[in-house]
Formats: sequence, C-alpha cells, structure tokens
Amino acid sequence: MQKKLDRHRGANRLLNRCETLAGFSALSDGILRAYLTPEHAQANAQVSQWMIEAGMTTWQDQVGNQWGRYEGSLEGAPKLIIGSHLDTVPYAGRYDGILGVLAAIELVSQLNSENRRLPFAIEVVGFCDEEGTRFGTTLIGSKALAGQWQEDWLAIEDDSGVTMREALERFGLDPKHCASAQLNPDQVLGFWELHIEQGPVLEAEDLPLGVVTGIAGAKRSMIKLKGQAGHAGTTPMHLRRDSLAGAAELILSIERIAKTIGGDLVATVGQVFSKPGAVNVIAGHTILSLDVRSQSDLVRDNAIEQINDVAEAIAGRRNLELSWNHTHQAPAVLCDAEYQAIFSDAIEQSFGHGLSVKKLPSGAGHDAMALAEICPMAMLFLRSPRGLSHHPDEAVIPEDVASALAVLYQAINLLELSYSQNALQGSQVS
Amino acid sequence: MQKKLDRHRGANRLLNRCETLAGFSALSDGILRAYLTPEHAQANAQVSQWMIEAGMTTWQDQVGNQWGRYEGSLEGAPKLIIGSHLDTVPYAGRYDGILGVLAAIELVSQLNSENRRLPFAIEVVGFCDEEGTRFGTTLIGSKALAGQWQEDWLAIEDDSGVTMREALERFGLDPKHCASAQLNPDQVLGFWELHIEQGPVLEAEDLPLGVVTGIAGAKRSMIKLKGQAGHAGTTPMHLRRDSLAGAAELILSIERIAKTIGGDLVATVGQVFSKPGAVNVIAGHTILSLDVRSQSDLVRDNAIEQINDVAEAIAGRRNLELSWNHTHQAPAVLCDAEYQAIFSDAIEQSFGHGLSVKKLPSGAGHDAMALAEICPMAMLFLRSPRGLSHHPDEAVIPEDVASALAVLYQAINLLELSYSQNALQGSQVS
Repeated sequence: MQKKLDRHRGANRLLNRCETLAGFSALSDGILRAYLTPEHAQANAQVSQWMIEAGMTTWQDQVGNQWGRYEGSLEGAPKLIIGSHLDTVPYAGRYDGILGVLAAIELVSQLNSENRRLPFAIEVVGFCDEEGTRFGTTLIGSKALAGQWQEDWLAIEDDSGVTMREALERFGLDPKHCASAQLNPDQVLGFWELHIEQGPVLEAEDLPLGVVTGIAGAKRSMIKLKGQAGHAGTTPMHLRRDSLAGAAELILSIERIAKTIGGDLVATVGQVFSKPGAVNVIAGHTILSLDVRSQSDLVRDNAIEQINDVAEAIAGRRNLELSWNHTHQAPAVLCDAEYQAIFSDAIEQSFGHGLSVKKLPSGAGHDAMALAEICPMAMLFLRSPRGLSHHPDEAVIPEDVASALAVLYQAINLLELSYSQNALQGSQVS
Repeated sequence: MQKKLDRHRGANRLLNRCETLAGFSALSDGILRAYLTPEHAQANAQVSQWMIEAGMTTWQDQVGNQWGRYEGSLEGAPKLIIGSHLDTVPYAGRYDGILGVLAAIELVSQLNSENRRLPFAIEVVGFCDEEGTRFGTTLIGSKALAGQWQEDWLAIEDDSGVTMREALERFGLDPKHCASAQLNPDQVLGFWELHIEQGPVLEAEDLPLGVVTGIAGAKRSMIKLKGQAGHAGTTPMHLRRDSLAGAAELILSIERIAKTIGGDLVATVGQVFSKPGAVNVIAGHTILSLDVRSQSDLVRDNAIEQINDVAEAIAGRRNLELSWNHTHQAPAVLCDAEYQAIFSDAIEQSFGHGLSVKKLPSGAGHDAMALAEICPMAMLFLRSPRGLSHHPDEAVIPEDVASALAVLYQAINLLELSYSQNALQGSQVS
C-alpha cells in the first residue's frame, strides 16, 4: 500500500518534471530542444540536479549525453544503463524520450530512499540527440557510446550554416574528444529503455505496457512509373498509359502483400507525386515512396521482393517503365531474450497473472538500436493515447506511468536475483 | 489528276503559311500568340491578306475575330461559316486551330480559281481566343458571335494587371461595342470546323480523317478522403486509416467504371495530393481530381453516380471521411446529323468506298461548341501523330492535309446539291 502511494507520488513528480523540461525550448509556442543548443545545456543541468537528488553522481560526456551513476554494493561494479533521450523534434510532445530518462531517475530515487544497493551499478543516461533535428544525423549520442562516432559528422552544417564542430565548441565540448565517449563493453551489463509506444497497439488492446521484441529495420525506396501524358478528353481509355492508375494498382498491392504476410510487417506509401499534375492531363509519370519494416530482415526483404514482382507485372501489363531508387536501409535489432522474460515476469507480478503480457515490435528507431552493438538491450513500451507522437497533443495516462515505475522496480528485483544466482554459480564453478 | 496536284499544292501552301504564322509569337524560343497582343494583330493582318488573295472581302469584327467573305451567286446570300482559331497556348504547336482557318482559305481559293459561285456565301473566320491563354476565359471570339459576350469580362486582368478593357482599347477596339459582334442567325446556314484530333484514335486506326459526332461535356471535381495520419513504423496494418490506400482503390475503380461503360466515356485522375506527404508517415488525407467526359451528359452523369457510390463504399469500408467539391461542368453538344452525313459521304467519295468512315467524339472543347447555340455545326478531325498537341512537336502528315482539302471541297459540292434541292422544294411548296 505504501509502495503504491510512492509510485503515484513518483509518477506525479515525473509528470511535473516533464512540464519543467518542456519549458527549455527554442520555440515560444511549442517545444523544440535540439542538439548543442542552450536548451540542451539547460535540460542537462536540470536533469543532473534531479539525478543528484536521487543519490547519483553525475557528469556530461564528450558528446553531450547527461549521466548519473548510482553505485552498486561494491564500488566500480559493472553497470546496467537505463535511459532514453532528452532532445526533441520541433513542436514536440512532452514525453517522447524524456519519459524514459525521468523514469530511470525515479527508479534510482526509490532504491536510494530504501538505502538499497545492488550487486551492480545503475547508470542513468539522457541521450543528447536521438531525433537528428539539428544536423540530420540521428542517434548521435548512443552511436558515440557504441564506438560509432564519425569524424566527418563534424563538418555537417545546421540550417544556419553552423557546423557540428563549431556547435560542439560553443557548447563547451572538444570536437577532438567526441570519440572517447565510447563505453567499455566489459563494464556494461546491458541497456534498458522505457519509451512511449508512439503507436496504437497497446491502446487498442487496453494495456498500459508492452514488452518490445525487437526494433524493425526499415528499407525505403522511391518507385517511379513512367507512362504517357495525354489529353484527358481526347485519349480513349484503351489507348492510355496512365502512370497514376498503375501507381494506384501498386499501392493497393503493397497494402495487400503487407496484410497477407502479417505479423509485424508494415509497408507504407506516404508520398505520391504525379506529373504533369493537371486536372485535364493523364499522368505521364508518377513517383511513390515505399517504407517497409519488420523486426526480421528476412521477412522485410521477402516483402520487398514480392512488391517488386507485382510492380514488374503491373508495369508490363500497363506498358509502363518501372524504376526503383533504394534510398535507405537499416538492419533489424532483436531485444535480449532474458531481459524480455524479466520484463514479462515483472509485468505479471506487478498486475497479477490475469493480465496478458503484450509483446510487440518497435517500428520506430530508438537509441537502444545503437547500444545493441555493444550489449544486450531491452525496451518497455508505454501506451500512447491515440497513438499520437511528435505532436503537442502527445499524451500519457498518469496511471500507466505509475505502472511503468512499478514494473521497472520489479524488473530490477528480478535482474538482481538472476545476477546473484549467476554470480553464485560462477563462484561455485571457479 | 490536275485536281490532285492542286490539292498537294494547296496543302504545301497551307503548311508554309503555318510556318509563317508561327513566326508571329511573343516568345523567341516557341510559339505564343495570345488575345489582343501585337502578334494577334500581325496574324489577323497576314490572314486577311491571304483571304483577299483567295478572292474574299475581309474585316476584323468588334472582338478581334478575323473574317473573309466569298460572296455567293446572289449578293447577300446566307452564309456557311468555316474556320477555327488563330490564338495559341504558350509553347504551342503550329496546327492547333490554325489548320482549320488556312484550310478554309484554300477551299475558297480553289472555288475562286474555278470562278465558281455557290448559292450561299462562305465566310471564313479566324477566332481570336479559343485557348483562354491571356485572360483565363476560353472561346471569347465564338461566344461573342453566339450572343454570349459578357460585360464583366472587361474587368478581368492578365498576368501583368492589364484589364481586357484596356487591352481591347490598345488593340484599337471599342469595349462598348464587343457585344455587337453577335451574328444574326437568320443569315447563318451553319458552321464547319476542321481541327487536328489532339488524340490518338485516328492514328491507331490508320485513318487521315474522322467525322466528329459531338463535343463531350466535361464535369470536374476534387475528391477528398480523410483518414488518420500515423507513424509508418508503429501503426500495424490492421489499425490504419490510410487515405492514400483508399484513394488508390478509388482511382482503380474510376478506371474500371470508365472501361466498363465504354463508348466515348473517359474518366481521368490527373492530380493527387497526399498529406502530410512524408516517407515515414501514413497519409492522413488525400485529394484527387476527377475529369469525366462524354458526348452524352446522361452517360457522363451516370458514370459520376457510379463513381460516387464506389467512393462511398470505399470510405465506409476503410473508415475514411469522403467529400466532393464539384468545380466545373459543361454540357455536351452534338454535331448536326445532316452535316455528319455530308462529311461521311465526302470521305467515301474522295477515298473510294474501301475506306471506312471513322466517327468519333471530341473530348476537347472547340469554338464549334459556342456556335452550336445559334446554328447547326459540324467538325472534321485530322490525324494527330502520337496524339500530340499543345506542344512544339505537334505535327500533321502533309498527305492528310491534302486529303482534308479534297474532302472539304467534296463536302461543299454535296452541300450545294442539298441546298439547291431544298430551295427547289421550298419554291415548289410556296
């Protein structure tokens, strides 16, 4: 009963802190907090203050990530990293990223208030740039930790012509030292990230939380169909080579293929451009975008192959020229199986066994993708009302936040148990 | 044999004159001849000169149409008007409109060279503004003849802010007198127009000429489908309300309905706008244009009704909001049956009975639509290589032009015969 009250107090404090961070913005009529800006520095300083209050020692690393360490029962113990990002898109919501950093601080605060030390340290991280708002590159903070800092990023300019090198210097960081933000994997147990779902799945199933199974790898293409422009009045239906009608057939086929394959596969045509684009002229060529994602690269690539086959058939039947331009691809990353089991057990134990545990993939990219290069990682999703994100109306349900704090606490209990058992087995063997 | 040579000489002269007129252009790198410009005046003066050489008396009317009259055997006889337009779109071809004016002059020139007078007069007209290039209103010249001049046109401004009133004055015309360009229908037997097809039908059937059955009436709408924007990665297929997928289904249905109805019905989606229009966002709303034409308003309206039913079904099934905005409509106009028979007979008699006579609708609008308000009208289409028009590569086959001159001459013979028989019957009755 006391714990439940604590959790609600924790959730309330967390939500108030989201409001405070929303005030560190470059916009007067919305939230915008981009990499290496004064707002970034303000947010880091504020988060550092909250980390210290929660019993952590704090520092900012060489690329601008904010850190707090809650020492283990033995000094210098390996660490579980928990966190998410503090930067935002323009006109952002209050919770995307932020929620995961503040929840980790609440977790540590709870442990600290109980004077409880674990056999491992907890390090809370607030990543500096997940969104790529300022320089176009995403996951800068987490990639640097994973040893994937790229020196040529320094030359990238923002919209005002300021290079990342200049921005780092103005922020008080040394561009020469960015790469040394890299973590020593031997010191890292793993990475946990709580994040809003940014989708409608948990809401549709009336669940506060879900265990993420993996982060989908996206492949993107621009597909062009070229036919013959013609007068809408003087060209009979049977003499047309209408690129837009061909594109329409392809869009429907893409939807059908994605639904037939099922599972976590999603395929989206979000852009369509039809030229010359006049009311009374048959579309001579049409370009459409394709975004295909699955947590299985195999499933995704098979879908793209099916789409290509259908596109070729449509182009052949309609006498259109087909061309593909592959613009982007990222491999899928799976979440650690043991961590997924811990999160599932923690959810069951927190809510009672009546509640089914929803496992779901992440269609969006997250810092956890980059961390997966150096350590096991896992993610917990929190219900997003209306699936809304990257929007001022982005919301969370306070009760869900309290549930998330309960589940994180229980997950730490289970990890401690597993860690101690492993350590015991290790010592028995040796 | 001599006549065939004459026709080839006539066709060659006509094509040379097309080149000459192409030189009266506001563009140095293409053809542009808009209403009430110096080029308009130059073209009228040149055409007037050719009309005089062909044996006509000439004048420019109160709105800027160029006229020539070849008197009948009795002075003041009623007149058959033959012609087309002399204005162009920007970067136009050499034949759209022009061909019909110059062919009428060749016809008169032939009659004149034979010292032949008909029981009716022939008046050749070069309309001043069919395309609506300068002021946005189309068919200005022919509408004025049909008594449909509108005083409020005078206030319309061109892109430079010059009103039609000012342009008329600078051209030397009196804005107060435009309406008096109206013809007295009692003096008009009918109107004939030779025009390039601007479509691929005659080329596909390997025919030089076709008899137009009517001019299709177009109805245009913008159709909006509203769904729910969402993250392309985080929204499973079954929870989507994808407006673009709905629009794709509708575009295919429009094509299917048009093909199923068949005949001369054409339905075209030339524009599609998908918002927000990002690679990784499901389209929240999609707007598409619809242009439906038939020479039967009933067939056209029935098609639109079927499209609307299907659109409602798609919107219902996909949980999308559907709205229509009807932006334009023009009624269909039929060509005169007797004139069609005359053109058909003239084609058969000119080419021998082996050649089938192609009857086809005009999907595009023409000055003949306006003249149909006050007199019977008919049109003859000339093959358009590649269906190309409103383009510098617009072309005609010289042999086809010679054929057209032969058919027009034979049609005049048949009309004279019919006219004399009717007059004889008339005098017997009275």
